Amino acid sequence: MAEPSSAALDALRAQIDEVDQEMLALLQRRLKLVGEVGTIKHREGVPIYAPKREASMLAKRRAEAEAMGVPPQLIEDLLRRIMRESYVSEKDVGFKRVHDTLGPIVIVGGGGKLGGLFAQLFTLSGYEVRVLEQNDWDRADALLADAGMVVISVPIDKTCEVIERLPPLPEECLLVDLTSIKQAPLAAMLKAHPGPVLGLHPMFGPDVSSLAKQVVVVCHGRGEEHYQWLLKQIAIWGARLHEAPASEHDQAMQLVQAMRHFTAFVYGLHLKREHADIEQLLQFSSPIYRLELAMVGRLFAQSPSLYADIIFAQPDALARARHYLDRYQEALALLEAGDKVGFEALFDDVAQWFGDFAQQFRVESANMLMAANDSRSG
Amino acid sequence: MAEPSSAALDALRAQIDEVDQEMLALLQRRLKLVGEVGTIKHREGVPIYAPKREASMLAKRRAEAEAMGVPPQLIEDLLRRIMRESYVSEKDVGFKRVHDTLGPIVIVGGGGKLGGLFAQLFTLSGYEVRVLEQNDWDRADALLADAGMVVISVPIDKTCEVIERLPPLPEECLLVDLTSIKQAPLAAMLKAHPGPVLGLHPMFGPDVSSLAKQVVVVCHGRGEEHYQWLLKQIAIWGARLHEAPASEHDQAMQLVQAMRHFTAFVYGLHLKREHADIEQLLQFSSPIYRLELAMVGRLFAQSPSLYADIIFAQPDALARARHYLDRYQEALALLEAGDKVGFEALFDDVAQWFGDFAQQFRVESANMLMAANDSRSG
Repeated sequence: MAEPSSAALDALRAQIDEVDQEMLALLQRRLKLVGEVGTIKHREGVPIYAPKREASMLAKRRAEAEAMGVPPQLIEDLLRRIMRESYVSEKDVGFKRVHDTLGPIVIVGGGGKLGGLFAQLFTLSGYEVRVLEQNDWDRADALLADAGMVVISVPIDKTCEVIERLPPLPEECLLVDLTSIKQAPLAAMLKAHPGPVLGLHPMFGPDVSSLAKQVVVVCHGRGEEHYQWLLKQIAIWGARLHEAPASEHDQAMQLVQAMRHFTAFVYGLHLKREHADIEQLLQFSSPIYRLELAMVGRLFAQSPSLYADIIFAQPDALARARHYLDRYQEALALLEAGDKVGFEALFDDVAQWFGDFAQQFRVESANMLMAANDSRSG
Repeated sequence: MAEPSSAALDALRAQIDEVDQEMLALLQRRLKLVGEVGTIKHREGVPIYAPKREASMLAKRRAEAEAMGVPPQLIEDLLRRIMRESYVSEKDVGFKRVHDTLGPIVIVGGGGKLGGLFAQLFTLSGYEVRVLEQNDWDRADALLADAGMVVISVPIDKTCEVIERLPPLPEECLLVDLTSIKQAPLAAMLKAHPGPVLGLHPMFGPDVSSLAKQVVVVCHGRGEEHYQWLLKQIAIWGARLHEAPASEHDQAMQLVQAMRHFTAFVYGLHLKREHADIEQLLQFSSPIYRLELAMVGRLFAQSPSLYADIIFAQPDALARARHYLDRYQEALALLEAGDKVGFEALFDDVAQWFGDFAQQFRVESANMLMAANDSRSG
């Protein structure tokens, strides 16, 4: 359809463009100020993510917006997006080094994506970082001899094997792993090394632009006093630490990680076998269906072995997957019997179990879907 | 953790706050200008969503940002969010009425959420709107006698029954339905009414704040020349029209709608039966797991009968659901056999089938996940 225009419309649009250009100039100024904040934070070792400052700043701007007749959610959404950029640029300045006398950090698997991200963060924080890759085991003794910390960042199914293969480490050396399961690696580390041991699970992909607001799960091993500095260092990078027993962590991961990946895999397989036409599906897609399609499809842009590892390495994944099958068959039986009443009753049961979370999730996802709709074009 | 501060940091933060307040003032000015644009669009009947103007405006601001050292994606994301607000406020002005001589519009089911949204949009566009609800059938003849258009917006499983129940409509009256399946209602309308007939599927929920960029699927029935005005009216509301044969639409809906709802239902049931602790799952959740949990949980904040209707009403949903079960069992067999090689081979097959879409979905979802992370706090 043609886009009609008129002199009056054009004049208003020119004024809007001017406003937007002024906004650009403000952004430029703001990014410069944020850069200066980064320099100070770097010098003083202040975490890049300051939740209280952020919350109080947003509350003030919301109140001012309200008084001015500007929707408060609009200014909050804009400022949150701008702050994302700030966190990224604060990172570029580097970070304060918390532990001044730590020996070299050896990252086993530091050539991988996640290991590489941590290598970068430690380097930006002024530590000496060494990488130990598959082909470096003949010189492992030399690499590890004076290590202050060893970080294991290898595929899940190799983690325990790699830990067992380590030569004796210096007594005070901290041994840490970054695997997405925690019980087995933690046990292996405690067995392999009598010194300080810590299990971490960074709950984000290696392609994040900054650690601001990301969660790192902390499973204590041994000798907490020897790794308090590391937790402080990670907080300076902007991440939030969540302490939990390894068993609790692993159980949650089976439900949210292994099963989600597995069912997304099955959904992708199903679409292929049904000869779905993705192009066509996208044309019919509301924001919600598009998002769900994207959440399935994104899996297949990634490494098969990464996902196979995650699914096959979860100790109870198989039992959970069989349980899921039972529930699928239960629901299918209702569909086969045309039993809508039974389906609705079961739906109500689950809804009651979700309780207030269902509504919370609805609101949360509605915001996401609005944002997804914003980025449509054409 | 305490949030250290210093005089230098405080001074910079005060300057940042000033910048943000200037931004608020700009937003206020911009919203006022957009209100004036709305008035002109209303008068001239210009669609509220102008894709070309939007694309050229974004391209210009991106180029300017680039030259100023501001990340172009930042200004684009901000402007897209601001434009969402603009579309909402343009709606408040009302819309131009395209068909000046149309008789009253009768919305059957106009008391429901979706019917209510369309009642509001037609009213904002200057049409006379009447609602025919369940208890109004005894005065249906009077309500419908001089109708210019009848819109059917009732639960899926009632649609055909309601269409058959209609008394004879005026010859020139347009008969339209808004159901999320299209073949059966369209056939029922063509049988019930010899005049102009049109099938629509609005691909959005009733809680959208504006129709800007939302998709409405158009399945032609009979007498296109009699409903061109309606398509133009919907475009003025900001929606994009996607024309398709009813059979093609229904096939796509089985794959993206019925099966997604069904598997999300099963996932919710699974979580309940596994005694998952949602509070705890959320604490362990990366943005991606949180989003997936939200996409399951949101289902259960909604009406059981709405979802039962959608799933049970799809003609081939049962066959598709059985196929899905086969694929689940196929993948489970690999897991039971510990056959990682077989799993990875199948993964590669599906990845090849997704082709470039996998990467596209990965990028798209990564943006969504960054936005989800922005809104974390505390």
